[in-house]
Amino acid sequence: MIWEQQEFRLSARSRGYHLVTREVREQLTGIEQIEKGLVHLFIKHTSASLTLNENADPSVRRDFETHFKRMVPEDTSLYEHTQEGPNDMTSHIKSSLLGSSITIPVTNGALNLGTWQGIYLCEHRNQRKTRTLVATLFGTNES
Amino acid sequence: MIWEQQEFRLSARSRGYHLVTREVREQLTGIEQIEKGLVHLFIKHTSASLTLNENADPSVRRDFETHFKRMVPEDTSLYEHTQEGPNDMTSHIKSSLLGSSITIPVTNGALNLGTWQGIYLCEHRNQRKTRTLVATLFGTNES
Amino acid sequence: MIWEQQEFRLSARSRGYHLVTREVREQLTGIEQIEKGLVHLFIKHTSASLTLNENADPSVRRDFETHFKRMVPEDTSLYEHTQEGPNDMTSHIKSSLLGSSITIPVTNGALNLGTWQGIYLCEHRNQRKTRTLVATLFGTNES
Repeated sequence: MIWEQQEFRLSARSRGYHLVTREVREQLTGIEQIEKGLVHLFIKHTSASLTLNENADPSVRRDFETHFKRMVPEDTSLYEHTQEGPNDMTSHIKSSLLGSSITIPVTNGALNLGTWQGIYLCEHRNQRKTRTLVATLFGTNES
Repeated sequence: MIWEQQEFRLSARSRGYHLVTREVREQLTGIEQIEKGLVHLFIKHTSASLTLNENADPSVRRDFETHFKRMVPEDTSLYEHTQEGPNDMTSHIKSSLLGSSITIPVTNGALNLGTWQGIYLCEHRNQRKTRTLVATLFGTNES
Repeated sequence: MIWEQQEFRLSARSRGYHLVTREVREQLTGIEQIEKGLVHLFIKHTSASLTLNENADPSVRRDFETHFKRMVPEDTSLYEHTQEGPNDMTSHIKSSLLGSSITIPVTNGALNLGTWQGIYLCEHRNQRKTRTLVATLFGTNES
């Protein structure tokens, strides 16, 4: 049984949806030893999310921003919690709609993603922020 | 410690929300040996999801379709990514709203679901597609 | 390798979003022994959810209620499944949007949450209900 746990930071990104598969993958020390297992990725924030989605066409990430801005409108008259502006409460709502963690199978030492799946960092705040993640890798080295 | 990992296909289903608890359960070889553990179910696609919901009344699944069609409208003027039609980008959005994986406790060799919980395959595309899942079972055989 | 699994009830709460970090934490017997691991929290219901969000300002929880009531309107003309009233189908939809489980890293014997993260019980039904959870703790006692 193999256990690896790393806390690390993703570089600050502008508001929107960003493909970070490669940047995350570089942090997964020890994944090569795992024949069958899982990786759990967790973001330690309440105004950013992790999700899996299409890894090829940048227009998908732009359409995510367009859609979620419409679905969770930045209208301060709708919310009490607006100390940090119209982007404050909406970021918290998007954080829970998209979620704080993802879990991905590990098979034969690699992430077992579908052909079109990539890891998105969803930055809901207008300000660029460095975000802290915890990666927990676990599994067996027996096939 | 027990580890089992299977990749398998669900039969193609029409657009909508489908109860697949039995079909998934048949793939969980080795679950009987696990006294305390978890099963992680993962769908390797960006236009279909897995979720847990009501397992009895088919009208719940129909209302899911009605609701999500209204909440994520198929209006190509709203999106850039529409090469595959009005159902293209909306499927990606629903994929992330409902999620690519579920994790269920295993207790005394069985899925420890609530009385009314069942596993839904959410098929967001108009075309029927065979969908690939990865089931990862892990736990202990000690009580 | 440590495995602990407990099934327990949260006290009944009124409709809305409730911070339950402390009540859940008290049930996590054995967490102190885990150097690197995870805890999986699962709710055995289809009309309540678990999510992580802001743990300080109660107005965030009130705004969650306001937002989700607007995003998933309680209008029986929109749904078939309304036997238990306008709050029936909407609770099922919110259950899947926010999800039935959360997974949190355990590091050095404690939940490794961000400074502002807390565990929310999301009670979607108008009636107060006792809710059953399953906590599965697993990890290694080696650092």
